[in-house]
Amino acid sequence: MSETPTVRPARANAITTWDFEADVVIAGYGVAGACAAIEAKRAGADVLVLERTGGWGGAASMSGGFIYLGGGTALQKALGFEDTPENMEKFMTAALGPGVDAAKIHDYCQGSVEHFDWLVAQGVPFKEAFWGEPGWEPAHDEGLMYSGGENSAPFKDIATPAPRGHLPQMENKRIGEKGGGYMLMKPLIDTAESLGVRAEFDIRIQRLIVDEDDRVVGVVAKRYGDIVHVRARRGVVLATGSFAYNQEMIEAYVPRLLNRPAASIEEHDGIGIRVAQALGAQVAHMDAAEVAFFVDPQMVARGIMVNARGQRYITEDTYCGRVGQATLNQQDNKAYLVMDEQALEAALATESSVTFFRQPPKWAAETVAELESDMGLPEGTLQTTVEVYNKHAEKGSDPLLDKKTEWVKPIGTPLAGWDLREHTGGFTLGGLKTDLDSRVLHVSGDPIAGLYAAGRCTSGVCTGGYASGTSLGDGSFYGRRAGKAAAAQQD
Amino acid sequence: MSETPTVRPARANAITTWDFEADVVIAGYGVAGACAAIEAKRAGADVLVLERTGGWGGAASMSGGFIYLGGGTALQKALGFEDTPENMEKFMTAALGPGVDAAKIHDYCQGSVEHFDWLVAQGVPFKEAFWGEPGWEPAHDEGLMYSGGENSAPFKDIATPAPRGHLPQMENKRIGEKGGGYMLMKPLIDTAESLGVRAEFDIRIQRLIVDEDDRVVGVVAKRYGDIVHVRARRGVVLATGSFAYNQEMIEAYVPRLLNRPAASIEEHDGIGIRVAQALGAQVAHMDAAEVAFFVDPQMVARGIMVNARGQRYITEDTYCGRVGQATLNQQDNKAYLVMDEQALEAALATESSVTFFRQPPKWAAETVAELESDMGLPEGTLQTTVEVYNKHAEKGSDPLLDKKTEWVKPIGTPLAGWDLREHTGGFTLGGLKTDLDSRVLHVSGDPIAGLYAAGRCTSGVCTGGYASGTSLGDGSFYGRRAGKAAAAQQD
Repeated sequence: MSETPTVRPARANAITTWDFEADVVIAGYGVAGACAAIEAKRAGADVLVLERTGGWGGAASMSGGFIYLGGGTALQKALGFEDTPENMEKFMTAALGPGVDAAKIHDYCQGSVEHFDWLVAQGVPFKEAFWGEPGWEPAHDEGLMYSGGENSAPFKDIATPAPRGHLPQMENKRIGEKGGGYMLMKPLIDTAESLGVRAEFDIRIQRLIVDEDDRVVGVVAKRYGDIVHVRARRGVVLATGSFAYNQEMIEAYVPRLLNRPAASIEEHDGIGIRVAQALGAQVAHMDAAEVAFFVDPQMVARGIMVNARGQRYITEDTYCGRVGQATLNQQDNKAYLVMDEQALEAALATESSVTFFRQPPKWAAETVAELESDMGLPEGTLQTTVEVYNKHAEKGSDPLLDKKTEWVKPIGTPLAGWDLREHTGGFTLGGLKTDLDSRVLHVSGDPIAGLYAAGRCTSGVCTGGYASGTSLGDGSFYGRRAGKAAAAQQD
Repeated sequence: MSETPTVRPARANAITTWDFEADVVIAGYGVAGACAAIEAKRAGADVLVLERTGGWGGAASMSGGFIYLGGGTALQKALGFEDTPENMEKFMTAALGPGVDAAKIHDYCQGSVEHFDWLVAQGVPFKEAFWGEPGWEPAHDEGLMYSGGENSAPFKDIATPAPRGHLPQMENKRIGEKGGGYMLMKPLIDTAESLGVRAEFDIRIQRLIVDEDDRVVGVVAKRYGDIVHVRARRGVVLATGSFAYNQEMIEAYVPRLLNRPAASIEEHDGIGIRVAQALGAQVAHMDAAEVAFFVDPQMVARGIMVNARGQRYITEDTYCGRVGQATLNQQDNKAYLVMDEQALEAALATESSVTFFRQPPKWAAETVAELESDMGLPEGTLQTTVEVYNKHAEKGSDPLLDKKTEWVKPIGTPLAGWDLREHTGGFTLGGLKTDLDSRVLHVSGDPIAGLYAAGRCTSGVCTGGYASGTSLGDGSFYGRRAGKAAAAQQD
């Protein structure tokens, strides 16, 4: 990192000229930054957003757009799903850890209904339609789906299943244009602009500026090769995203993710985390990662997933991000999908948002023994896996992994195998430890004066597991908190 | 953490009285601190060690005493084992990651032979005897054994197997009295004292002291309720051990290890890491953990280990710490041992350092089907696992996990099962990122002036995997480096 500029804080008394000034300065104009800007401005602060690219949106506008919400949102109710904050909390506690921040999860669940209404009030559109089939996203523009394995083992028995993946209505399915992420961000940015939030683009932060009491009072940034100094009279909000594209940080914290970033953008270089660490900020769960698995969930649910020993290891009808995490973290990134012809035909007849993942199998065989041999698995391994699976499947049960009855069918012949080794990617979930007001905490435990953060530069509601929508969810939720808290600071 | 004292640095210009002064001030008198003290003193520095307990030793003197060394040490040669630094490096790179610090591993392997000779020169005794059976430690006072799975799959095919667990000769087997750890530490402390190293006990560090250039020039500590200020003219060496006993840090970084510390001491509260983080120090691999598995390796090698699905998941003849890591990290801490009567009798006839782990089985049965049912495993799972294992074992092979032929025997009847769920514990391996001179690195990438660290408050040669002896190994090796580097600083 010696070629990169220092992230050590600068001293305010050494700054002679302030190029920009505002009450609240926000670094990053993705979902956390936009929500912080709106709330800070509404609270009466003069707000300036610094964005390193040429436009707003961040990773959010490139994403699918899921926001993880529940507890009885208007959309859940309209579609006939019952949920409570307590029920949502049970699921999130069980599925997103280990090590979840219990206070943050509780707070998030309690505020979830209001947060949905707030998003709607800013103009984010949600279509009253439910997508109930396996998938990374709905096949069309439905507004609600299961996005975390809520209705699969083991969580279906821990909390009452309720879909919580809330998806802004897309205007077409091309992600990055008017996909769900764009349709989330556009209204938020429009709202911010209409309120008078100022934004400067092509400015990337490099260091924080502190006064003699170590209070954060601004940022040093770079614009077209020039250093600029930005004064923040009330506070600085870091909303700069993950460290998925910082190779040194990935090596130091999440080596399994090395060279496999996904669902992220190159600007996610961890700068927000590092400038705060330079002030003694506490970090948490730096090894946690969302894991994408490049496969069609419509196929996975209808087959069996086996590891390099030919053993089943994950409920196939769960959220495919869980399949990805189990594969990368617990199976050394080695996995195979096995399906018979009938199941494959059924899968191919379904709709899916990821039909491009429907690749032909690597192996096709007339018998399990033949497939096992072709796949190079030790003799007897896949055969006994299928034998045990079929024995129970004939009775519609799966005592090994408790796949739901609707997906449990004996595997016949002919059958095929897909090589899904190294088929994962992901982004990082670890980051700055923040309190419920999005204040950045020092390793001493108390907040760093003048410094706030939200989004994927913080450790949020996910500390181990993941559900689609939790990143835009806690980013937007705690982005709002950051904006409010920073604006409430006295000058 | 709000009740704990702040770890924010103090400013030197605010200190009016220095209670102690030395060229090099070392926090912690375990193995890293002792080695740092010896080298700093020999390099001409006036050295003061601050130890928070009433006596020297730290976790090292309570430990088994293994030091992981190789590349052709005098002891390896005397016992007929061939090894080279390159071969050792191949093993360590494969076994201790992912994400190993390649430069540190290379450096450590290159210096390993010299480091062994140095330990001998300080008076650490090693008996020229090899223990070749499975075990956590030798059954007697042998000086060398395999301690990382070097001679098991998959490493036996990656690097030429060589034992590298070097064990100081115990005077009796009671750990903490004259066990291996004591016999390592006693000569080191005697050497330090004979050189004139000063030590003050019952002093615990609380904060670092920095000058106007943010250079570390001392520590604030506490002794019997009083604050004391200690000036370090050349440098401060942090050698305060792991964070195994800091519950908040475990929650934030290694939640799987919550409430299960082992092979550690309560003083390991992460203070060295936190005072350096308050200065912007970089940390690395905070999720990594050594995992102890409370079981007799003589039994494990002779049986099969299965997970909660009745599936084998780890080569049973490997280092039992690897079995523990695989169990805790990849099998949700759920594992069972299955052995037939003949194998159990053979195991019980062996010598072992942990005969107290030889508990009676939880289940005994006449057939595999009966055992499977008694253990509550889904029908067919354990039966097919044993069936596939036996089919290959009859030919002396184990294509599933490549257990060595000598341990592969068909499982007959009667047989028994041991419930090894929640049978793990461990200590943390993550910590401060240091360079090859043990300088603590800032998140900017450059060293923090005046600050050095070694031992388990640093991220060392292990970033994911583990081998017995690597902690005392890199603690002593980089402790020496820290002492030399600190002493070489100009006043």
